[in-house]
Amino acid sequence: MTAADRLTALRRLMARHGVQAYVVPGSDPHQSEYVPEFWQRRKALSGFSGSAGDVVVTRTRAGLWTDSRYWLRAEREIDGRAFTLFRAGQPGVLSWPEWAAREMRPGQALGIDPRLITHRDYASLKTRFEDKGLKVKAVSPNLVDAVWADRPAPPLGPAEPHPVRCAGESVASKLKRVRGAMAEAGAEAHVLSQLDAIAWLFNIRGSDVAYNPVVIAYAVILGKEALLFADKRKITPALRRALPKDIKVLAYQAFGAVLNWLAERKMRVWLDEASASRWMVGALRGAGRLMFQPSPVALFKAIKNSVEVRGAHEAHVRDGLAMVQFLRWLEGAVPRGGVTELSAAAKCAEFRSRQKLFKGLSFETISSYGPHGPIIHYAPTPETDIPLKPQGLYLIDSGSQYLDATTDVTRTVCLGRPTDKQKEYFTRVLQGLIALSTTSFPRGTAGKQLDTIARLPLWDKGLNFIHGTGHGLGTFLNVHEGPQAISYYRCVGVPFEPGMLTTIEPGQYPEKEFGLRTENVAVVVRDARRSTAGTEFYALETLTLCPIDLGLVKKSLLGPKDIAWIDDYHRRVRRTLTPMLGREDAAWLARATRPL
Amino acid sequence: MTAADRLTALRRLMARHGVQAYVVPGSDPHQSEYVPEFWQRRKALSGFSGSAGDVVVTRTRAGLWTDSRYWLRAEREIDGRAFTLFRAGQPGVLSWPEWAAREMRPGQALGIDPRLITHRDYASLKTRFEDKGLKVKAVSPNLVDAVWADRPAPPLGPAEPHPVRCAGESVASKLKRVRGAMAEAGAEAHVLSQLDAIAWLFNIRGSDVAYNPVVIAYAVILGKEALLFADKRKITPALRRALPKDIKVLAYQAFGAVLNWLAERKMRVWLDEASASRWMVGALRGAGRLMFQPSPVALFKAIKNSVEVRGAHEAHVRDGLAMVQFLRWLEGAVPRGGVTELSAAAKCAEFRSRQKLFKGLSFETISSYGPHGPIIHYAPTPETDIPLKPQGLYLIDSGSQYLDATTDVTRTVCLGRPTDKQKEYFTRVLQGLIALSTTSFPRGTAGKQLDTIARLPLWDKGLNFIHGTGHGLGTFLNVHEGPQAISYYRCVGVPFEPGMLTTIEPGQYPEKEFGLRTENVAVVVRDARRSTAGTEFYALETLTLCPIDLGLVKKSLLGPKDIAWIDDYHRRVRRTLTPMLGREDAAWLARATRPL
Repeated sequence: MTAADRLTALRRLMARHGVQAYVVPGSDPHQSEYVPEFWQRRKALSGFSGSAGDVVVTRTRAGLWTDSRYWLRAEREIDGRAFTLFRAGQPGVLSWPEWAAREMRPGQALGIDPRLITHRDYASLKTRFEDKGLKVKAVSPNLVDAVWADRPAPPLGPAEPHPVRCAGESVASKLKRVRGAMAEAGAEAHVLSQLDAIAWLFNIRGSDVAYNPVVIAYAVILGKEALLFADKRKITPALRRALPKDIKVLAYQAFGAVLNWLAERKMRVWLDEASASRWMVGALRGAGRLMFQPSPVALFKAIKNSVEVRGAHEAHVRDGLAMVQFLRWLEGAVPRGGVTELSAAAKCAEFRSRQKLFKGLSFETISSYGPHGPIIHYAPTPETDIPLKPQGLYLIDSGSQYLDATTDVTRTVCLGRPTDKQKEYFTRVLQGLIALSTTSFPRGTAGKQLDTIARLPLWDKGLNFIHGTGHGLGTFLNVHEGPQAISYYRCVGVPFEPGMLTTIEPGQYPEKEFGLRTENVAVVVRDARRSTAGTEFYALETLTLCPIDLGLVKKSLLGPKDIAWIDDYHRRVRRTLTPMLGREDAAWLARATRPL
Repeated sequence: MTAADRLTALRRLMARHGVQAYVVPGSDPHQSEYVPEFWQRRKALSGFSGSAGDVVVTRTRAGLWTDSRYWLRAEREIDGRAFTLFRAGQPGVLSWPEWAAREMRPGQALGIDPRLITHRDYASLKTRFEDKGLKVKAVSPNLVDAVWADRPAPPLGPAEPHPVRCAGESVASKLKRVRGAMAEAGAEAHVLSQLDAIAWLFNIRGSDVAYNPVVIAYAVILGKEALLFADKRKITPALRRALPKDIKVLAYQAFGAVLNWLAERKMRVWLDEASASRWMVGALRGAGRLMFQPSPVALFKAIKNSVEVRGAHEAHVRDGLAMVQFLRWLEGAVPRGGVTELSAAAKCAEFRSRQKLFKGLSFETISSYGPHGPIIHYAPTPETDIPLKPQGLYLIDSGSQYLDATTDVTRTVCLGRPTDKQKEYFTRVLQGLIALSTTSFPRGTAGKQLDTIARLPLWDKGLNFIHGTGHGLGTFLNVHEGPQAISYYRCVGVPFEPGMLTTIEPGQYPEKEFGLRTENVAVVVRDARRSTAGTEFYALETLTLCPIDLGLVKKSLLGPKDIAWIDDYHRRVRRTLTPMLGREDAAWLARATRPL
């Protein structure tokens, strides 16, 4: 089936359902950042594979909306005769609701799968459309499924128990805390749909989403029992034994009926505001009260306990070993020739896989050389892969899932002689990382306030970077985790607290020239020296152990504190990793971490 | 009438209106920050005079809620037998809605004057109360008025035209811009209730609120005409001539009927979300559509045109002259004795009043010596006034209304020999001010991102201050103006743009020790040097011209850039002001601005 065929078939279904426009969002029913293949309807329909993008189909037109990360990829992947690319974020470009409303006539209806849109967004869309005399209609089942000839089957990998010796807290204890929050809020039931939240709460790990060890599931927490809705074929005996007795495992398909049941009993139901779907809220019609607030699980999960923090420390040692081995290999292999972006990424994955407790990568490795550097989310494919030459910059952003932690690190190396501009930009980026890594801040400080600190050395030069400065990470869970974020656009005011993990990843991507980024992971700790009876102060303790390319450092730009930080950091990397490295790796490391 | 008497009378009225609890907010119908006397019902009932605080009266109890700025004052002013003080913000202290709900029984009603609560807050209150089986009832007229024996008359000062040579833009042009925004939003009518917004739009200045040269009014902007609702006795012939012909002046009391009329015609009405009262929305019942969005006037008003910016520059020269004269007088007078907080504030006001185009103070002068320093919003009264001795720190935060600008400046002076701690804290505060004053930032940056910059030298020492870093100012209007703010709690994400004014005012207030703050006003300008084709960069240009007490500067703490900034700043102050100062003032200034 071609793109045009699929659209024709879809339009027939649309007519049958009485809608003149139909939305195919990039989301899944759980608002996951990465979507399992069998739910990738937007990609199935349009060909576009990026992690963010929505499609709208009318009777005569079809559009794809995606942001600047993906314009180049979208142009490559979609059939331009069937789909129009709308560059979301460019001045003057309509959002898809605006565009759809203009394509429609009063009385017409826009259809959308109610599982794929949050209640909040659906309500807002409905209001806007009704203002214009248009209708919004929840359409089930999903229309794309019917025109998806070669739709893959849902994933069936086993759901395993995550050991308490890694989680640091039992399911019973976690449920008790959640129930405490429910009691405070006056909620009788709490409904969860986010996969990583459910995985954390029930100490479960699976393989239903690439790179994210989660299980497709829903959950309902009540006062005396907890219901987990998942494909029972995935529940291993080990998992069933590990789950407390008061947890009932029900079929994934039974979730809707149970929501109906909560409503019939007029229960006061707490839904996570950001992720609860329209369908879920519809199934709860008639409930005693629906409370839309952030789930308490989000914050519980973000604040790592001492076992998780220790796991993160230990995992980062292993991660450092893998990175050192890779960087030394890279240094030797590139001049010999035959290294490409893809082969380097594969080699990095190979070194990672040899580390203890390795469970897989945490995301698709970003391996970008030279002209691919400025494409911030570039990940090489066979079509785009290029060889690495002994000149210019190479950027590698990679991470692992270990049983005890999730990692994410970026290093930029110069494969030849760096230009002065590359050194200037690299060094200012590094100064931003150092500034943020060494800032102590008072309790109550949120990410938006911290984000600026990493930018000041760049702003001073009229430079900036258009991504956030850092994100949280799960414990053998999603590499991107909230609710906190060091960002100027994503921050929702959640204060940073001890136990939270964050990346620190400033960068520079001058168009068509080069790309560079340096990224570490840090954990928030209490700053005993600065804390007083009046105010608690917190600091960021760097966990990542990986040398920074001294060849890119412009020493004349650095102040004494910067130099001290780099030397101290490198000394720590050297001392920690050397005992576990082979002779050649150790010798390479000694050189790479020489004092400035 | 005693407090108890008033409460008894109020409770009789409450019973008559069928409410078992009654709210007396500190607000006025226009959500003004400072409330005209005749609308100060909360003060009339409870005695508490602070700028923020709400009272709730039940059949047997009465409470006052106010924040930490005012706890000391509230304790002093209220009758503790009649009113309970609730320290809002302290852990465990209920908000007034929570408290009221607990005092009431299902079926009972909470009454509130619908003019004094925003639509948004009323809707949220109603939802919360109905959840608990309680009612919320709009009660008109205000019940306190009936028990307010000596209620003052409404202000009757004249409303004058604000000359275009100061405003920089005609009313016709402003209306055109507002109508453009209305057309874009699809609104047929825009309703304004905020007094400074109305004053700005119609180029009117009055004297209805202490320190804020506004006129009590409402306004409705339509496509072809504009309606201004104000006490016609205030409209001078000069103002009537100055107002364009398409502006009709109607009685203030006619506003409600006109809202009814907009509703009857099913108009699409744009209300300012943050300030539209419940009463206004009720009067619009049946309207075609109510759009709750920030009024376009807020941003238009915040971005000063070149005439206003020039006026701000010129006014700050006059302001600097007044401050220099005052500081020189202070230096001589304190050792002679007889100077108190109040007398110093009065002397400062006297110097200010002698400047050209002076129209009054812009706020009640904060004049705090020694132990009063840590009380952030302290303003001396006859009861609290203390003499200034030739030791310790004195803080003066004052400002003027000039015909061409509004000013606000804080200086801290040491009247004797400073302690090392005072110098350390003063210098770090100054470093924070310098850091922010010299930061260039990319277009799109909002205040919350800038706030941190002024704190970093303090955070480094485990210090912080619990107020925002800066606020906007009007042009001969309110000294506190939004929508932008340099704040960690108040910022709503409005980007800083050229033409916006902001204060920069970090401080330190160690409990029971001393208080110090240094405050300048700056205007956002384009940074031509850092701006590129890709990204516009902006900088802050300091307008305030007033020496900083070098006796409090700990030079060993300063870096070369800090020292250069201070010397450059002082040189500019000296060169600009000296030609206009008398001989002794000029000599004093030369010493006060000597190079570090």
